[in-house]
Amino acid sequence: MHLEFTYIPPDFKRQEYAASPFVELKPAPADGIAPARFHATSNFPEYIHLPAPGWVLAPESRMDAVLKVTGVNVEVVEARRLKKGDLVVVGRTENGEEGILVHVDCFQRIKQTGNADKFAFRSRGTRETPFSRSYDELYDILEHDRNRGYIVWVLGPAVAFDKDSRNAMQGLIENGYCHALLAGNALATHDLEAAYFGTGLGQDIYTQELQPMGHYHHLDILNEVRKAGSIKAALQTLPIKNGIIHACEKAFVPYVLAGSIRDDGPLPETIADVYASQDRMRKHARLATTVITMATQLHSIAFGNMTPSYRILPDGTIRPVFFYVVDMSEFSADKLANRGSAQAQAILTNVQDFIVNLWNNLKEKP
Amino acid sequence: MHLEFTYIPPDFKRQEYAASPFVELKPAPADGIAPARFHATSNFPEYIHLPAPGWVLAPESRMDAVLKVTGVNVEVVEARRLKKGDLVVVGRTENGEEGILVHVDCFQRIKQTGNADKFAFRSRGTRETPFSRSYDELYDILEHDRNRGYIVWVLGPAVAFDKDSRNAMQGLIENGYCHALLAGNALATHDLEAAYFGTGLGQDIYTQELQPMGHYHHLDILNEVRKAGSIKAALQTLPIKNGIIHACEKAFVPYVLAGSIRDDGPLPETIADVYASQDRMRKHARLATTVITMATQLHSIAFGNMTPSYRILPDGTIRPVFFYVVDMSEFSADKLANRGSAQAQAILTNVQDFIVNLWNNLKEKP
Amino acid sequence: MHLEFTYIPPDFKRQEYAASPFVELKPAPADGIAPARFHATSNFPEYIHLPAPGWVLAPESRMDAVLKVTGVNVEVVEARRLKKGDLVVVGRTENGEEGILVHVDCFQRIKQTGNADKFAFRSRGTRETPFSRSYDELYDILEHDRNRGYIVWVLGPAVAFDKDSRNAMQGLIENGYCHALLAGNALATHDLEAAYFGTGLGQDIYTQELQPMGHYHHLDILNEVRKAGSIKAALQTLPIKNGIIHACEKAFVPYVLAGSIRDDGPLPETIADVYASQDRMRKHARLATTVITMATQLHSIAFGNMTPSYRILPDGTIRPVFFYVVDMSEFSADKLANRGSAQAQAILTNVQDFIVNLWNNLKEKP
Amino acid sequence: MHLEFTYIPPDFKRQEYAASPFVELKPAPADGIAPARFHATSNFPEYIHLPAPGWVLAPESRMDAVLKVTGVNVEVVEARRLKKGDLVVVGRTENGEEGILVHVDCFQRIKQTGNADKFAFRSRGTRETPFSRSYDELYDILEHDRNRGYIVWVLGPAVAFDKDSRNAMQGLIENGYCHALLAGNALATHDLEAAYFGTGLGQDIYTQELQPMGHYHHLDILNEVRKAGSIKAALQTLPIKNGIIHACEKAFVPYVLAGSIRDDGPLPETIADVYASQDRMRKHARLATTVITMATQLHSIAFGNMTPSYRILPDGTIRPVFFYVVDMSEFSADKLANRGSAQAQAILTNVQDFIVNLWNNLKEKP
Repeated sequence: MHLEFTYIPPDFKRQEYAASPFVELKPAPADGIAPARFHATSNFPEYIHLPAPGWVLAPESRMDAVLKVTGVNVEVVEARRLKKGDLVVVGRTENGEEGILVHVDCFQRIKQTGNADKFAFRSRGTRETPFSRSYDELYDILEHDRNRGYIVWVLGPAVAFDKDSRNAMQGLIENGYCHALLAGNALATHDLEAAYFGTGLGQDIYTQELQPMGHYHHLDILNEVRKAGSIKAALQTLPIKNGIIHACEKAFVPYVLAGSIRDDGPLPETIADVYASQDRMRKHARLATTVITMATQLHSIAFGNMTPSYRILPDGTIRPVFFYVVDMSEFSADKLANRGSAQAQAILTNVQDFIVNLWNNLKEKP
Repeated sequence: MHLEFTYIPPDFKRQEYAASPFVELKPAPADGIAPARFHATSNFPEYIHLPAPGWVLAPESRMDAVLKVTGVNVEVVEARRLKKGDLVVVGRTENGEEGILVHVDCFQRIKQTGNADKFAFRSRGTRETPFSRSYDELYDILEHDRNRGYIVWVLGPAVAFDKDSRNAMQGLIENGYCHALLAGNALATHDLEAAYFGTGLGQDIYTQELQPMGHYHHLDILNEVRKAGSIKAALQTLPIKNGIIHACEKAFVPYVLAGSIRDDGPLPETIADVYASQDRMRKHARLATTVITMATQLHSIAFGNMTPSYRILPDGTIRPVFFYVVDMSEFSADKLANRGSAQAQAILTNVQDFIVNLWNNLKEKP
Repeated sequence: MHLEFTYIPPDFKRQEYAASPFVELKPAPADGIAPARFHATSNFPEYIHLPAPGWVLAPESRMDAVLKVTGVNVEVVEARRLKKGDLVVVGRTENGEEGILVHVDCFQRIKQTGNADKFAFRSRGTRETPFSRSYDELYDILEHDRNRGYIVWVLGPAVAFDKDSRNAMQGLIENGYCHALLAGNALATHDLEAAYFGTGLGQDIYTQELQPMGHYHHLDILNEVRKAGSIKAALQTLPIKNGIIHACEKAFVPYVLAGSIRDDGPLPETIADVYASQDRMRKHARLATTVITMATQLHSIAFGNMTPSYRILPDGTIRPVFFYVVDMSEFSADKLANRGSAQAQAILTNVQDFIVNLWNNLKEKP
Repeated sequence: MHLEFTYIPPDFKRQEYAASPFVELKPAPADGIAPARFHATSNFPEYIHLPAPGWVLAPESRMDAVLKVTGVNVEVVEARRLKKGDLVVVGRTENGEEGILVHVDCFQRIKQTGNADKFAFRSRGTRETPFSRSYDELYDILEHDRNRGYIVWVLGPAVAFDKDSRNAMQGLIENGYCHALLAGNALATHDLEAAYFGTGLGQDIYTQELQPMGHYHHLDILNEVRKAGSIKAALQTLPIKNGIIHACEKAFVPYVLAGSIRDDGPLPETIADVYASQDRMRKHARLATTVITMATQLHSIAFGNMTPSYRILPDGTIRPVFFYVVDMSEFSADKLANRGSAQAQAILTNVQDFIVNLWNNLKEKP
């Protein structure tokens, strides 16, 4: 089983950590403002040195937040959420010199064969990288996390544009492989359009044919759902019997629809305020054990930045959070890495095939 | 001069138009809800047949809005902005049968040589398409519109990541080639980071070197500007002397920063509500005569959908609105076309080179 | 069944065809030189008007060849293969005015619903196009052509770089879904490398691990095969028991390895002369009923240009030739279309997933 | 000046090198076959330890060749060119243990600021990487190498498809910035087509208009040049007065046209045998001091593999060879690196803009 990762905590008995000063705390000078030289968090486990309990691990983490300390309680908050006077960790070193330790290589795995040659081909991941093992690992991980984890899917609209991939996503939700779904207004709109009209932006999701007056389909479904007052209400009155959103509602899987400047409608559930969307998404980031983002650069980067690379389980053990980015272009994967989500593994392919392959393999599991 | 386009109005003396019924109007059943069979607008000029004045041209247009009629006054509004009882045009034909005429081929130009061969190579636009003439036309258009038009730039953050391209954009703004700038929080943040630290996300914008602690740069500049209360205030107190935002402030060029779920900070001017952002962007869409979008798929699609393909000038003449999309990938250009902005012309290249080329040519004009 | 296409020949009783002049023939002025105003062929069926038999259909076709006439015999040959004095069709019209008829819309199918709207979304094929039906059709076509057609696969090396995709291709060959395989030296080399070392250019085709001294693997296998004198001989002596080339040899499936300027080795079977390669490939183009090209722009364009869009079966019926291009980038698909292979259907995805999906579906057929 | 790189040879007085055994030599067992455990070269400087002169630097290098030793003379040859009995270096270590030293970090430069942070954004090169400095360095390098180096250009056909980029390339050749040009049949054909018809594959290289019967243009020019017997002869008789090939002929710049399986024609100068093409290209690789490849994956990889990373000048000093890859896609750049040309620097943009920018800057130099 590929999930057998052991967390190796830092050895705080080591001289340099024992001699490390306590972390410095400074008050936020105003609401939403961090003190000078504030420490910004990464996705990695971060420990701070406090007088009373000693070294304390932040309960979770994210890119570019600050550490707010209340007594022995450590919180990872975005600077915009600080209140004047909140005590914030300051210091920008990461090795303990200022009481802050960023712990990067923390999960032990059967070591990969090191390649110490001066020269090797194929050191960069591309579409030509073999993904057979990535799939096999992913089957194991999803199987495991179905009952003992929290799987978050982050979807671009393309998943709803194709019959087979939409069916596959529906199957995954219905069978417990999805604990939360994050997307935008478009994914939900076109998924409902597909349920109602069989089209995506007017194009038949099976035959590829553009339907006459098909460019009204998404507008009509938006108008109908808005009239009903909510998606939930609309599902009672409209003849919608399948799809991604329908499966979420039926299986009580929470979903977050973040609004964007290109939205029509929007659907009643779509959140207009992007920072409110962030807050809602981050609730799921804190619970996530596995994340799969598909064909959405904006949401991938946003969620990648707010997802910790580790999760402390209720029993105190610490496990890695798996983060897969499925996209067609090397640029998207590289951009995500360049924005701070280095732990993300790229699978470079069309999400249609990815999700169909995945579901074909998982659906035969007991 | 390439701007010599003549608008050819429909010939309303033709039998089918003269015999056309008046357009049907129905009240909005509730706030934000359109009546059944509402007519949705396109980017093209649209005429409706009213009893009193006869055929009336909508003053502007956009994708997927509705036509609200008050007396003889026609407004193009998003359905979400309707009030209960507003009279809305219904009907989904486009040739006059229901009093609605969508006028697609309306600008006369020296006809391109028709190619009637059964077979021709190179019928699809790609990176291999020759762009020499597109550049030459663009120089003419920008030269013309500098004083007699309204040029809107829509920017992704990449423009601020490179020294030469950032300088070029600054030069264009300072010299009157930009009447409004639309972007997100990231463009402004990294532009200010470049002014303050010389970096983009910690990478030197000239040497490509990653700076030590560079990953704090954008967070520090965000914190400083938030402390100052506004970008305008920050420019008084911080040593920021160049760049895109600085040039806009100095030259009183309005800019709109639309918030998104991947924002850090945000800057005080960034708009949290995406539909408020849409409204602010659309003000500029209504004025635009030329639009150039660079390296931003989300903003390109959003603004492409709200920009008319024509503009009625104060003297009553009608001219085309030019819309250029500059991006590296065929997919981005195709996606924009697939989302309804068929009038957009793609220039497939790196925006760094595009903007440097452009500015090199324009800066020598008197 | 999706293969039910009926060929509709031109109606030669129509006045304009009956009155059409006979085609003009001119001798080639020298070896490898066409006469002035030579007619160049397309991929479509082409008829020429001869005195004796009347209108004659070329037995096959290709892009950019000439029609050589010997008595009533018509041959489609590359200009470089002409001999001085060969009689060549001249004339550049396509509608019969000069006795040449290019017959483009020749296969009848249940008509797609025409979309006559002035406006429609999604008129361009991209990665977001739904491919469910393309797969379903392809299963039918391959099932049909396994026994009643001639399926040609054109492969880039990426297929051999992944364990599952290499297995899938092997399965397709072993089960009769491949009548000829066209590739370059690299595909065969890395497939043999995978059989011998389990790697592709030194990277484990399952685990992605770079092997120590892995950059010697392809060189060692090349040296071994060259020492053996041929691939066939090497398969007798080396412990190679699986893979694409092994399956071809075992199942007597012919393969053509065209040399290129980036070859190491090369393998003994690799053809050094590119025009000799063309000739060998074209033998298979003349027989092909279905072609699938995967992850190879050069070979796709080359083979696309030499493959007719129709095939005359032994019983005289005429059927379409199906041509699928599987690639990650819109640019590759567009480029193929721009080079004259308009009949090619693009499936935009990673070839690993494509071939695994395909084989998973086909392997359960009786 | 950016060319100030100093070559730092290995310190052969160091104990481990002084104690290093002499290199082992084994005879080639047959023509074109290397002995077991042959040493394969990289692009880096490689030294071998011989009894008489001691450590000897190979005079040049390339990927995946072998070292043939005749007395004290070392040659880097492709295995296919070995003759039976040739003495070949064996051994696969690179640190001197077997008398072979691969010397990777050999050029000293003002050290880049090391980034020792545990975390940094933007560690991967993409289209968002700032290229201002790359351009500035390139101007310096080309200015220097114009008179004191050997600049090799490797071109895909796209350069000839656009008026401005074709003019720019012509200007570079006419002004001494090109000492050799490597390309395929297509580049030369479409450049001559542009000179004769003003089109590329039938599309006007300025207006983008598809010309009637334009699909005959490249076939007609091929036929004319073939009739003339050579490009040189055709330039005497045909009205061709500009372009890339014309400039090469006028300025006596050698060019190599490597044939490929997608060629029409071919032109008389096009080389049919790919290994003969390799040999001709490698002559220029041995002389190159700067290489720029544009929009051609196949030729980039081929030439990248045969180009050393260093050049020994006549006076014995050793300088780096600069290798730039200009392409639109991260995949192309990554693929080149994955195939062994790690020294290649990518500039991700459209070659049209690249070459126009370059020429605009260089043409004003004295």
